[in-house]
Amino acid sequence: MRTHVAIIGAGPAGLLLGQLLYQAGIDNTLIEHRSADYVLGRIRAGVLEQTTVELLERAGAAGRLHKQGLLHQGFELLFAGQRHRIDLHGLTGGKGVVVYGQSELTRDLMAARAAAGLPTIYEAAQVQPLDFDSSRPRVRYQQDGQMREIACDFIAGCDGFHGVCRASVPAASMRCFEKVYPFGWLGLLADTPPVGEELVYAHTERGFALCSQRSTTRSRYYLQVPLSDKAEAWSDAAFWQELRLRLDPETRERLVTGPALEKSIAPLRSFVTEPMRFGRLFLAGDAAHIVPPTGAKGLNLAASDVGFLAQALAQHYAEGSQQGLDGYSARSLARTWKAQRFSWWLTSLLHSAPDASLFDARMQRAELEAIVHSRAAARVLAENYVGLPLQ
Amino acid sequence: MRTHVAIIGAGPAGLLLGQLLYQAGIDNTLIEHRSADYVLGRIRAGVLEQTTVELLERAGAAGRLHKQGLLHQGFELLFAGQRHRIDLHGLTGGKGVVVYGQSELTRDLMAARAAAGLPTIYEAAQVQPLDFDSSRPRVRYQQDGQMREIACDFIAGCDGFHGVCRASVPAASMRCFEKVYPFGWLGLLADTPPVGEELVYAHTERGFALCSQRSTTRSRYYLQVPLSDKAEAWSDAAFWQELRLRLDPETRERLVTGPALEKSIAPLRSFVTEPMRFGRLFLAGDAAHIVPPTGAKGLNLAASDVGFLAQALAQHYAEGSQQGLDGYSARSLARTWKAQRFSWWLTSLLHSAPDASLFDARMQRAELEAIVHSRAAARVLAENYVGLPLQ
Repeated sequence: MRTHVAIIGAGPAGLLLGQLLYQAGIDNTLIEHRSADYVLGRIRAGVLEQTTVELLERAGAAGRLHKQGLLHQGFELLFAGQRHRIDLHGLTGGKGVVVYGQSELTRDLMAARAAAGLPTIYEAAQVQPLDFDSSRPRVRYQQDGQMREIACDFIAGCDGFHGVCRASVPAASMRCFEKVYPFGWLGLLADTPPVGEELVYAHTERGFALCSQRSTTRSRYYLQVPLSDKAEAWSDAAFWQELRLRLDPETRERLVTGPALEKSIAPLRSFVTEPMRFGRLFLAGDAAHIVPPTGAKGLNLAASDVGFLAQALAQHYAEGSQQGLDGYSARSLARTWKAQRFSWWLTSLLHSAPDASLFDARMQRAELEAIVHSRAAARVLAENYVGLPLQ
Repeated sequence: MRTHVAIIGAGPAGLLLGQLLYQAGIDNTLIEHRSADYVLGRIRAGVLEQTTVELLERAGAAGRLHKQGLLHQGFELLFAGQRHRIDLHGLTGGKGVVVYGQSELTRDLMAARAAAGLPTIYEAAQVQPLDFDSSRPRVRYQQDGQMREIACDFIAGCDGFHGVCRASVPAASMRCFEKVYPFGWLGLLADTPPVGEELVYAHTERGFALCSQRSTTRSRYYLQVPLSDKAEAWSDAAFWQELRLRLDPETRERLVTGPALEKSIAPLRSFVTEPMRFGRLFLAGDAAHIVPPTGAKGLNLAASDVGFLAQALAQHYAEGSQQGLDGYSARSLARTWKAQRFSWWLTSLLHSAPDASLFDARMQRAELEAIVHSRAAARVLAENYVGLPLQ
């Protein structure tokens, strides 16, 4: 079997890359370790920057998103018992974000891929990118007890933080940067209407809380919890009770509770690999970098990575130019570090660190105050939240 | 002896308060542990916010400042080998700072006090504020071997971080917030022309450096050094050599060296006492709070404190109202915490912390990049640097 681009990992990054390449007339094969249902079942964020929406349009997968996605022109910042609206629209000259669940987006991309008749190999075992330091890379995998190989021009590693692609690169060829935060997010998904039209980010002495949403009938809530906590030990009732304690009276009043569809704890991590290209292997999304979920940059960064990569590959196949491919790593990393900075800053701003001194806590409070008292400070937050321009 | 307001500490805070009270017709006595020459010999920062300049005008001590002070409408931020100008004027709608040495300012205030014939007691030993929790506070001190006392209505504690005033307050009555930074500033004063018209703040892997100035013929340079360093161990030659290594080629070229008039190491500390009022004792300036010197907020905060206090006392004596006095602590602390946040942030941004991880170093770099790439981020820096409006 032979393809131009072998894409390892059929999550939103790999699927989006496949569609963008398809639109550019570049054939590609997706190889995924898991089943399609497993991929669809992963619950993730759903706050899309405008540039991500534009990439989905270009990929021909934005039809349902435009119908069902919710345009958010602001969000609420709650601290010291007071809610303050961050007017994204006013602060950024008209920009906002679109709330649309990642599962829905994955479903749309899968449908677009099926409609285009592009090959996807699910449940591929022992996937292995090979010879990417040569001009003839291959991807080997096992299916139905048989070892198979796909010969290709390029391999795109879209297989996430725990994937095989980054793990296949010799450690001496890359430099990793990492910060692990001393807390996690306990998430709960419920088919209940959200507390309001906009998201509520709450900083309290009990810890951070987030009232998010996937649609007008499906809510997603998060609580900062110690890393030692287990999701199973949190009953639905305990979750709702703790969430109430972290909200202001008005939001608490509007909270509609219901049975959890899903409940899990995610650790918070900042991670970057440099470079993002190794010969003919290109890492994209979580395979190269992880942001803590505060600010919802993970999916958006994955989208801009594959946007850059698709553009570089299109240039290569159309013009025979190496320029885009050679610049991919630096271009993606420049954007990555900005998003890392924002995600790290917003995480530090909103969570209660277990080792924070009294002074640290006051600095955090003073920084929150600065955001609501200085238009320039609010604008810095807003312009990063809606997403920096692609460069 | 009797006065309305006994001011302990004859540094710039105490002197400025004395003049502001005098202008309001409130008599006051200054009690200082050191000699006038000692006070004048203390080398400190000299970057004045516009609101500080206005207070000095109101105090009738701004004549020479207006002639010799240098208006700075920007400064240079140097990192990764590149200088970037922060256009304070353009970013803040026309504001700037005035560079004028603290020793000069102290001299002007002393002269104004002498001209007004106001009493100052220098070299007072064993100074002790007494009975400030009653309606009849006193200040006791020893002079010429005699114990003396000043009866007063109020005591202003302007005697700095190590002074007796805060130390006289029962620990249970206050809450302290503190951060000690793991590095110090080695300062060198020289009668050489500055490297340029504006200050240069340099962030390098070797540590922070600052090219500051007191006038067109007197320069002040600082190097970040480990706390374990001793000023005596730094020869002038070693200082200049290390400074050169932290500058860009153009600035290095313009550096004029000369013999050090003074060389000393100052630790960096953030410190706040809450509240700032204890009965009839009011703390102001360093007696209540310390900022790290990055951003030069110390003297400006002291000035706004005594500005608030003078206003409250004037209101009290003119109208018999307690309102200003009752609000003093909250008002000063609100401004203090904002300046603390800025000073802490700028310190963290520009220094190399010995315990920084690779990830931390990249966050610092990304934050510096954000300032030069986002006008909103540069404006946040600029509006804090020139000083927030008095409230």
